[in-house]
Amino acid sequence: MSNSPYIMRPIGIVRSPRDEAIDDNWGDVVSQIELCDDVPIESLAGIEDFSHAEIIYVFDRVTPDKITSGARHPRGNSAWPLVGIFAQRAKNRPNRLGSTMVRILGREGRTLKVLALDAIDGTPVLDIKPVMNEFLPRETVHQPAWSHELMSDYWRTNDDGPC
Amino acid sequence: MSNSPYIMRPIGIVRSPRDEAIDDNWGDVVSQIELCDDVPIESLAGIEDFSHAEIIYVFDRVTPDKITSGARHPRGNSAWPLVGIFAQRAKNRPNRLGSTMVRILGREGRTLKVLALDAIDGTPVLDIKPVMNEFLPRETVHQPAWSHELMSDYWRTNDDGPC
Repeated sequence: MSNSPYIMRPIGIVRSPRDEAIDDNWGDVVSQIELCDDVPIESLAGIEDFSHAEIIYVFDRVTPDKITSGARHPRGNSAWPLVGIFAQRAKNRPNRLGSTMVRILGREGRTLKVLALDAIDGTPVLDIKPVMNEFLPRETVHQPAWSHELMSDYWRTNDDGPC
Repeated sequence: MSNSPYIMRPIGIVRSPRDEAIDDNWGDVVSQIELCDDVPIESLAGIEDFSHAEIIYVFDRVTPDKITSGARHPRGNSAWPLVGIFAQRAKNRPNRLGSTMVRILGREGRTLKVLALDAIDGTPVLDIKPVMNEFLPRETVHQPAWSHELMSDYWRTNDDGPC
């Protein structure tokens, strides 16, 4: 079994009003993804015909000592069960990959404007894929209660009241 | 802007009955993802409480000369428009990353059994994330007609008749 590493180069960078890792309230964050200089503008041709894109990025501010490869309480909250890093979406994970589906707001040349990307300013982007209905789950999605609790304020916007 | 590379190490490997890249009919393919020896078994704790997982993997059989960073006709079919590599999900892409949501069938120790993973035998896996409803698009997903045509037989099972 080959265990050789793969070298990934950023294809873009996130420009976001957020510059620190905050757990919640990503719902109304508008970001720009700027292509790296060596990526041709044609790579984005036709993306505006899709409503959503999947952004694969690196949690580059996570230092190696913070990475968990075993189990942990999500957000360090002992009220939630001890679950494996691959049963949660926390940033402190092997390879530090993030993957989020965002709304496409528009494109201007080499810049893609998106809504609700949960990546901070300066985050390196490794891939952009169009969201297709056919690639979403084709059966009902089930998940444990703790994950609903964890996500309750994740996309909350600043306009949402506390009730 | 930092353009430094990131080194990714496989956390698992795909065991699949398919050993060549075929475009269609992935719907009833059952695969196993085996954790690499250096990844603790606890990393998968609790994943069976989720119905679906997102698998991020490397299209490692794609050679560098086949990678497109500009625009191309999907599947080389000139009946479909010339679109950018980031407006399609083709394997011949920068960083060669694949991302697919699969049904979790079960877990036995260090092996996760999944349905409809479109990765061939031996494919290196970089990450496994649980699918949460909150991380799926929160608005209706729109996409161009060509993408529906391209996907028409992608998940077709061998039990599906031609009509």
